[in-house]
Amino acid sequence: MSRAAQALAEEIGAVNDILCAVALLQWDNRTMMPAGGAQTRGNQIATLKGIARERILSDATRRATDDLLAETEGRADTDLDRRAALTVQAAIDHHRRLDAALLRRQAELGPVAGAAWATARETSDFAVFLPFLDESVALARESAAAIGHDGHPYSAMVALYEPGETAASIRRFFAKLRAGILPILDEARGRERDDVVHRRFPAEAQRALCRDLAELTGYDFGRGRLDTAVHPFEISFTRNDVRITTRYREEFLPGALFGALHEAGHGLYEQNIADAFTRTVFATDLILLYAVGGTSFGAHESQSRLWENHVGRSLAFWQKNMGRLRAHVPGRLDDVSPERFTCAVNHVEPGFIRVEADELTYDLHIMLRTEIEAALLDGSLAPRDVPSAWNEAVRRDLGLEVPDDRWGCLQDVHWSSGYFGSFPTYTVGNAMAAQLMEALKARDAGLDASLAEGDYDRLRAHLTDAVCRHGRSRTRDELLRDATGEALSAEPYLRYLRAKFSGATA
Amino acid sequence: MSRAAQALAEEIGAVNDILCAVALLQWDNRTMMPAGGAQTRGNQIATLKGIARERILSDATRRATDDLLAETEGRADTDLDRRAALTVQAAIDHHRRLDAALLRRQAELGPVAGAAWATARETSDFAVFLPFLDESVALARESAAAIGHDGHPYSAMVALYEPGETAASIRRFFAKLRAGILPILDEARGRERDDVVHRRFPAEAQRALCRDLAELTGYDFGRGRLDTAVHPFEISFTRNDVRITTRYREEFLPGALFGALHEAGHGLYEQNIADAFTRTVFATDLILLYAVGGTSFGAHESQSRLWENHVGRSLAFWQKNMGRLRAHVPGRLDDVSPERFTCAVNHVEPGFIRVEADELTYDLHIMLRTEIEAALLDGSLAPRDVPSAWNEAVRRDLGLEVPDDRWGCLQDVHWSSGYFGSFPTYTVGNAMAAQLMEALKARDAGLDASLAEGDYDRLRAHLTDAVCRHGRSRTRDELLRDATGEALSAEPYLRYLRAKFSGATA
Repeated sequence: MSRAAQALAEEIGAVNDILCAVALLQWDNRTMMPAGGAQTRGNQIATLKGIARERILSDATRRATDDLLAETEGRADTDLDRRAALTVQAAIDHHRRLDAALLRRQAELGPVAGAAWATARETSDFAVFLPFLDESVALARESAAAIGHDGHPYSAMVALYEPGETAASIRRFFAKLRAGILPILDEARGRERDDVVHRRFPAEAQRALCRDLAELTGYDFGRGRLDTAVHPFEISFTRNDVRITTRYREEFLPGALFGALHEAGHGLYEQNIADAFTRTVFATDLILLYAVGGTSFGAHESQSRLWENHVGRSLAFWQKNMGRLRAHVPGRLDDVSPERFTCAVNHVEPGFIRVEADELTYDLHIMLRTEIEAALLDGSLAPRDVPSAWNEAVRRDLGLEVPDDRWGCLQDVHWSSGYFGSFPTYTVGNAMAAQLMEALKARDAGLDASLAEGDYDRLRAHLTDAVCRHGRSRTRDELLRDATGEALSAEPYLRYLRAKFSGATA
Repeated sequence: MSRAAQALAEEIGAVNDILCAVALLQWDNRTMMPAGGAQTRGNQIATLKGIARERILSDATRRATDDLLAETEGRADTDLDRRAALTVQAAIDHHRRLDAALLRRQAELGPVAGAAWATARETSDFAVFLPFLDESVALARESAAAIGHDGHPYSAMVALYEPGETAASIRRFFAKLRAGILPILDEARGRERDDVVHRRFPAEAQRALCRDLAELTGYDFGRGRLDTAVHPFEISFTRNDVRITTRYREEFLPGALFGALHEAGHGLYEQNIADAFTRTVFATDLILLYAVGGTSFGAHESQSRLWENHVGRSLAFWQKNMGRLRAHVPGRLDDVSPERFTCAVNHVEPGFIRVEADELTYDLHIMLRTEIEAALLDGSLAPRDVPSAWNEAVRRDLGLEVPDDRWGCLQDVHWSSGYFGSFPTYTVGNAMAAQLMEALKARDAGLDASLAEGDYDRLRAHLTDAVCRHGRSRTRDELLRDATGEALSAEPYLRYLRAKFSGATA
């Protein structure tokens, strides 16, 4: 390693350490922290993020970056040293454009807005959250203006989470998907619902089941843990400590079960990043100031949705694992065959809650959020009008009347955390998961058989090779081109949805 | 607030934020972190402590300190601005003397040495821990030399935890106590032991009991939590979030029960520091780089031992709370009167484990550790000879043969964390607790009656007023002089021990 590369590695290693501490402050905030802690937690996160930013903008980092850029001038685009230097340079440019005070206001707002959102959600009282949403939107608009964009401020936000995408590219991609999904939904909706998943499943049994299934995917509890959170998430402090959460509703088994498989999928991404990338720029998001190793939010979501849906909601999975499930909830599912259970967990029915939506309506939930947040960003929608805009979109797309905001615009944590622009990445992830799975099955004729045998190591090895191990050293579309021959495409996803939902289910 | 005071407050506020994050990394390390996390946790703590130190040594902090010193020149010693400036100046002097590399080595050693200690303790294999003890001792000796001392390197270490004390002052204080304790012990030992506390008490019931008793003292769970740890501790991230831990042995009730009261006592100290001191120099140890509000380790221990022993091991406490205890462990103590239970939990019998020792032998445990660590520091004892020195001292002082190192020199976490010099503060705390309690009872004739009625608010108000609210704005002996009329003294403690153990027990 050259002296410049070494110097840069030291600076970025320290930035990663700081951001891992931020991640722990955030994890704790959402799982363990007593209520009183909210008062000072915002200061702590704001101070550490500010220090991380200062370190990125420091003379030492800039000098090492410039030296490494000069040293690697003319080298191939795939040269890791050059890529590291270019990534840091982009982060320096980004943070120079964003005022430190803005960052501090955002970081300080997070915990108080989060607490207000939690109260508002619990009591279904949008008014409690509105002042914080006002402030969050104002901050996002200021940020977009400072970062710069192609004419639509939402583009600046989207690119934070999904580099390479814009407001327009997302709109086009969503239009194509929507046109493909609506006819399948027309065909699939209205089939009879099977209430087996609504029997009563004790939370303790669900917890043990979730742990068991996460382990089955290969999620390593020696480098992780599973906790309870109001809004489930995955978070990592290097690949050596990657934590997941889920939540338990005793009258709805799929929530926790597929939530755990989903978060385990995220966890597998982080746990399987190359060890050599620990504490490097390829395991640190220097723009968003996160200690994350996934290359984009969409790429991350591709892994969670792949394990949740392509594995967890397949007939093959339950043909193999129905006994395991039954053992966790004795007497409750003894009369239910794998076929019936698979059918029940793939039942298509428009509902209010995104994280419990079936695969056909899920993206419609995303599209309405994207529409609303794009309008908030360009100012065509005022925060106070979010409930009516939301309820109108739910009526139009899902044909449902939202009973109250708890079941509507207060269900997601994102806006309280200042995450405007991240919703589209969920649908990007769905599409990427299908694209990867189609290509892996085409390449490895034995993959389906191994999954039917309950061997998940083979799939995990493929995904580690194609996606996880690269960390942030390759872009989403570079990964996709290598693995599937093309950049992100809607077609494999629509083929998958058609195959699964236009004929017999599962 | 003057501009200089404001500037200093901002710098110290940021240092406090950083050190609160360090505290969370440490809490998590000892309660929640999966095993894999140890690999990178050391980097994270080391980086953040390094940043805190840099901030203390920064031009901005030095300039604000110098300005505030000039501004407050000639003001009274009790002026808070002047005291803040003097405290920061002392910290700047300290850290200038200590090499940053030394600090980093210490911080990085912590988690790996802690993991080695845990393994060594579990398997009673001192050899596993020895290389880390070697390194810890070497680092402590280097630190003492850099800090400077009065001729005995142990003085430099002791003063870190108990400002104002030296190797010699501790030796004198211990000699006086030892001379007083040994005759009382001779009289009290050999009384018949009552095995009621060794019945089987389910861990879950103990957990609920501990929570209940902590709440009874006034420990606020809205600003705290109780978890399980191998070696119980209390830790705070500002007064708004103060966490305690205990551990459960089903065949020994007092361990968890008095452990919880002990840690709740520590917690009460931190929760009751004046709100105005949050994020200030009076709630931050700038020398040891801890976000702690107690003015010395001994003062801290005075609060934990007071709640544990003067309240929790008193007959009045069990006369009031025996029903509460019985309700938590149905059927297990129904035949045991408050008198018998109090007698059982005050049984004097030399044993191997410090944290489970009775009040008469506890200080002998401390004295032998102090003797050993002073000898490690001045080089008269080699780390590899610690087990034999330990076992010899236990034979001499307690008349017992240590069966293996798990029951001997591997029982405490301190040396694996680099805490050399902190053991004497436990005995300082015992003495200070007795001194405070004697004075409070002399001053408030109704205090005993209120405790007998189960009203702990009155005692807590006294302690808050005399000790807690002041944070680090007053020294231990300033607090003691105001509350009791004299600096730390051995006499009240010996009077207390004599009254309790030389006639009828309790």
